[in-house]
Amino acid sequence: MLRRGFLSRINAAQWSRQMSVVAKSLKYTQHGEPQEVLQLVEDKLPDPKDNQVLVKILAAPINPADINTIQGKYPVKPKFPAVGGNECVAEVICVGDKVKGFEAGQHVIPLASGLGTWTTHAVYKEDQLLIVSKKVGLAEAATSTVNPTTAYRMLKDFVQLCPGDTVIQNGANSAVGQAVHQLCRAWGINSVGIVRDRPEIAELKQMLQCLGATEVLTEAEIRTSDIFKSGKLKKPRLAFNCVGGKSATEVSRHLDNGGVLVTYGGMSREPVTVATGPLIFKDIAFRGFWMTRWSKENYSSPERSKMFKEIFELMEQGKFVAPNHEMVPLAKFKDAAAAALSFKGFTGKKYILDMSI
Amino acid sequence: MLRRGFLSRINAAQWSRQMSVVAKSLKYTQHGEPQEVLQLVEDKLPDPKDNQVLVKILAAPINPADINTIQGKYPVKPKFPAVGGNECVAEVICVGDKVKGFEAGQHVIPLASGLGTWTTHAVYKEDQLLIVSKKVGLAEAATSTVNPTTAYRMLKDFVQLCPGDTVIQNGANSAVGQAVHQLCRAWGINSVGIVRDRPEIAELKQMLQCLGATEVLTEAEIRTSDIFKSGKLKKPRLAFNCVGGKSATEVSRHLDNGGVLVTYGGMSREPVTVATGPLIFKDIAFRGFWMTRWSKENYSSPERSKMFKEIFELMEQGKFVAPNHEMVPLAKFKDAAAAALSFKGFTGKKYILDMSI
Repeated sequence: MLRRGFLSRINAAQWSRQMSVVAKSLKYTQHGEPQEVLQLVEDKLPDPKDNQVLVKILAAPINPADINTIQGKYPVKPKFPAVGGNECVAEVICVGDKVKGFEAGQHVIPLASGLGTWTTHAVYKEDQLLIVSKKVGLAEAATSTVNPTTAYRMLKDFVQLCPGDTVIQNGANSAVGQAVHQLCRAWGINSVGIVRDRPEIAELKQMLQCLGATEVLTEAEIRTSDIFKSGKLKKPRLAFNCVGGKSATEVSRHLDNGGVLVTYGGMSREPVTVATGPLIFKDIAFRGFWMTRWSKENYSSPERSKMFKEIFELMEQGKFVAPNHEMVPLAKFKDAAAAALSFKGFTGKKYILDMSI
Repeated sequence: MLRRGFLSRINAAQWSRQMSVVAKSLKYTQHGEPQEVLQLVEDKLPDPKDNQVLVKILAAPINPADINTIQGKYPVKPKFPAVGGNECVAEVICVGDKVKGFEAGQHVIPLASGLGTWTTHAVYKEDQLLIVSKKVGLAEAATSTVNPTTAYRMLKDFVQLCPGDTVIQNGANSAVGQAVHQLCRAWGINSVGIVRDRPEIAELKQMLQCLGATEVLTEAEIRTSDIFKSGKLKKPRLAFNCVGGKSATEVSRHLDNGGVLVTYGGMSREPVTVATGPLIFKDIAFRGFWMTRWSKENYSSPERSKMFKEIFELMEQGKFVAPNHEMVPLAKFKDAAAAALSFKGFTGKKYILDMSI
């Protein structure tokens, strides 16, 4: 039995005869480069039963981890055949007869990872979905479960921050970096962003400052900056690293005693080098963060509900926007997938598959 | 007014006329190599007043940090003229008239660092001293406040260990390493020690196993060992590093998910290299530990009293012995100081100044 929401109940037989759904999905049956192993495949979807929910995907981003998963380079291994993608925003089409919390027309996002979101339609389980207000933009909702939550947890779970405290990060224009700036602005925390120098550095600085960055400095500028020594900003007790190598060392150098450097990415493919002195005498800690683990370990926790509530409130109020992005049609997935994993893709622009075009 | 204990009270004037004390101290008035800047100097000591305690030093070790302090390479900077040394065991000679907790004849150790212990006699404040039972050996008491406490805190403060758990460490024959093995044995924890290969490796392994090491492996042996994969020992969640470089990386590689590598030294003078993957996907944390900070921050804490009580009980029971050491007369301090900082000195033998010879 299906329910199409409270306002438009029809039975499953009627409905399936009326509008049998064919999903177009980006599937792969072996690991490899996305451009080579992904195939656009059509499958007729079964009607949603029991606790299942049939959704139409509206938008689904291409994240670096999605590409790594397809390449077989990620710790999470899918079962083949697999549909690519982990994030999306979708609209509920109809629900199985045991579903209580959802109705047709609502917008939802996935609570679980590995659901395969690069598809026009999908059947998920009720407990894999979270309703999101339609006041939240499609790009924001589609990209809400990985980057903003990573920024949120890294700001909450390593050091107890107070308004007026400072956070420093490299790769400050990454999608997580942009989220960090916006959450810091909302919470009254100073955020200092480090970026690589580039021809369009002035525009980049302006963009990040618009998102709430207190200071944006190039890697050369931070080495000679006196923003902390002069007392203009409090020395940071929390730093985020998505680059590694010398960039990570430089960021950690500015940490106050007892500070923590949290690594969530390694764009340079160079390890983090940790001198003995800061470890022992400054009590600097080097930690890592992986959103996938946190989400699994806190799947139904009140802390997770609270986090989504806060993030969506900021999005509704226009205080938190999606990272720089480009909407691309599903048919152009090959170009987008190739670009998403490049250095430019990771720090410059997020590609979001738009299923409506 | 002075008190010479409950049994032999004489007034200060009588006492000072009878036995005015001249201290022979190893002093320095500038930073440099210990052999060059240390001078054996005689000073007449004032009578202890108020809360002061006059002690005769019985034995005082030469620790690597003592040498670094004299060289000016340590974060703790002494005021000149300074007396070298931070640890000792001493005998109370007489006390000022406001002293309540001490009496002549008792053995004491310093609770504060930087007191200058390379001297035959000293006047300290009551709250800088802790009474230690005479059942504790002189070498054990003299070396109790730095290495055993470092091992104790590193085992207690980073990961919650249970009997049957495993700890792994490099530089396993360092003074702290020897303390780790003994505390692990007392607490039912498996301790795996990594050492550099050497001609007398068999004797070294035997010595460390006598102290309680569950397994002692060379750096080559641990790379191919299956003690964790085979399930013989649980994968460690706690590792200690006093070497750095490749040795630290190798040790961290054996940590279980969520494990912590604690660095307390850097003998190789190479930094710790931290790959991004283990930080993010295995949630491995890289921390540091400095006993001096902990002691300052916990100067009068119940946790500190509890720690000393446990360590001294083990020493009294013969379950915890001093690290490999050699007693040397004060007159031979130059040779001992030079040897103490060498690689061999750090991992092989601790030199303890014996003030009675």
